[in-house]
Amino acid sequence: MAGLRVRSVLVTGANRGIGLGFVQHFLKMPNPPQWVFATCRDPKGQRAQELQNLASKHPNLVIIPLEVSDPASIKAAAARVEELLGGSGLNILINNAGTAKPSSLDKETLETMTQTYITNTAGPLLLGQAFLPLLKKAAQGSPGSGLSCSKAAIVNMSSYAGSIEDVYVWEFGQVVSYRCSKAALNMLTKCQSLAYKEHGVLCVALHPGWVQTEMGGNSESFKPPLTVDASVQGMLKVLSSLSEKETGTFLDWEGKILPW
Amino acid sequence: MAGLRVRSVLVTGANRGIGLGFVQHFLKMPNPPQWVFATCRDPKGQRAQELQNLASKHPNLVIIPLEVSDPASIKAAAARVEELLGGSGLNILINNAGTAKPSSLDKETLETMTQTYITNTAGPLLLGQAFLPLLKKAAQGSPGSGLSCSKAAIVNMSSYAGSIEDVYVWEFGQVVSYRCSKAALNMLTKCQSLAYKEHGVLCVALHPGWVQTEMGGNSESFKPPLTVDASVQGMLKVLSSLSEKETGTFLDWEGKILPW
Repeated sequence: MAGLRVRSVLVTGANRGIGLGFVQHFLKMPNPPQWVFATCRDPKGQRAQELQNLASKHPNLVIIPLEVSDPASIKAAAARVEELLGGSGLNILINNAGTAKPSSLDKETLETMTQTYITNTAGPLLLGQAFLPLLKKAAQGSPGSGLSCSKAAIVNMSSYAGSIEDVYVWEFGQVVSYRCSKAALNMLTKCQSLAYKEHGVLCVALHPGWVQTEMGGNSESFKPPLTVDASVQGMLKVLSSLSEKETGTFLDWEGKILPW
Repeated sequence: MAGLRVRSVLVTGANRGIGLGFVQHFLKMPNPPQWVFATCRDPKGQRAQELQNLASKHPNLVIIPLEVSDPASIKAAAARVEELLGGSGLNILINNAGTAKPSSLDKETLETMTQTYITNTAGPLLLGQAFLPLLKKAAQGSPGSGLSCSKAAIVNMSSYAGSIEDVYVWEFGQVVSYRCSKAALNMLTKCQSLAYKEHGVLCVALHPGWVQTEMGGNSESFKPPLTVDASVQGMLKVLSSLSEKETGTFLDWEGKILPW
């Protein structure tokens, strides 16, 4: 992780799973960011307890309420972050918040399709728009040419399940609303990479692996292959290695390029 | 077109553009379908006049009101088609209805993202669910093994603009909400192909080319390269040639495989 030195990072859906893992790893870095913004829907709630405990020990961790499907909530969060940064930019936006409703193709509804898309695809688009001024500022304030995550980056947490070519683990779950939303998120990532390159912002879609989280289906009877720690450590190493060449690509936690 | 002989077909968004082109070509076949179901939102409206004129001359053309974003409207249309078919199945469902709002990435909103997705992606999913019993019936009633459009097929009108790999004509228009919805439609097509194969239903995503329609941007000052006639004729030839090998693929109007 020697390569990834950032002054500020924001992680959505940071109260558990991979989002919480990112926050923990950023805080434990030898040179931790000056600002780690961790967002979740209900910072005061029971499900944000671990995040609260961390914040009580780390003054550089700021918890911010954010509902990624609500444009007003996104605007308020961006305004708060801008205020706290006091004139400096945001280096990394990690669009990690996501949802998945287990379902077979014949059971999907207009509601599951729409809600999943709003959270997993429209949310990252709106967050990209809202934080673009701060990302641009970080890019402008960084030395050297070219793109890197140490300058400015949007990291969209995608999934190999969203690979149209491979339709990863179809037999495990059809989850068509989830797969469609992640294929669309991959398209968004590509579009963001094309539109934001001129602003110095690198954009990448990451597959975290099949991780021991609630969404991964972790239970007493079934353990996905990867721990949160191993996944996040792998992704941070990947992020530290990215340059202009990789903007707009779809990579797994080990840096392997995945097919769209 | 000798290869494509079907007893019944349904085309959504059939009152103009490519949808209307499909209807005209089906009616002009040497062996036209016994039933051509043409759906549009407002069959009595001014924008359905051409379809009305055709129906007055072709008793095998039935116009059915359908709003693809409304599950109740879809159910009503499927019930009406089932009633008219009187025990036989539906050979081809062409999910052609679609929408595109010209917009740059920084101008997309939650509303454009959601509405575009509902019409372009969720609609085809719901239509596939609603017409699956009739498509299965057509497949069961057809001789021979394997898949073909003469037996039973779902044809999703996609767009090369939805190719994540190539992001076709980005310079012409960013239309991120449209691109995301079509990438998701490609994923849906792949999922439908996996889930419906056992029912004998072929599923394919087609790019019609850049066509002289309202959506294609046809105007006095700008003409897209392809006429509706050339596009539809090409796609019908492609459809007539498809077999099990091509289910779940993304093809253009000349039969060329496009990258996801």
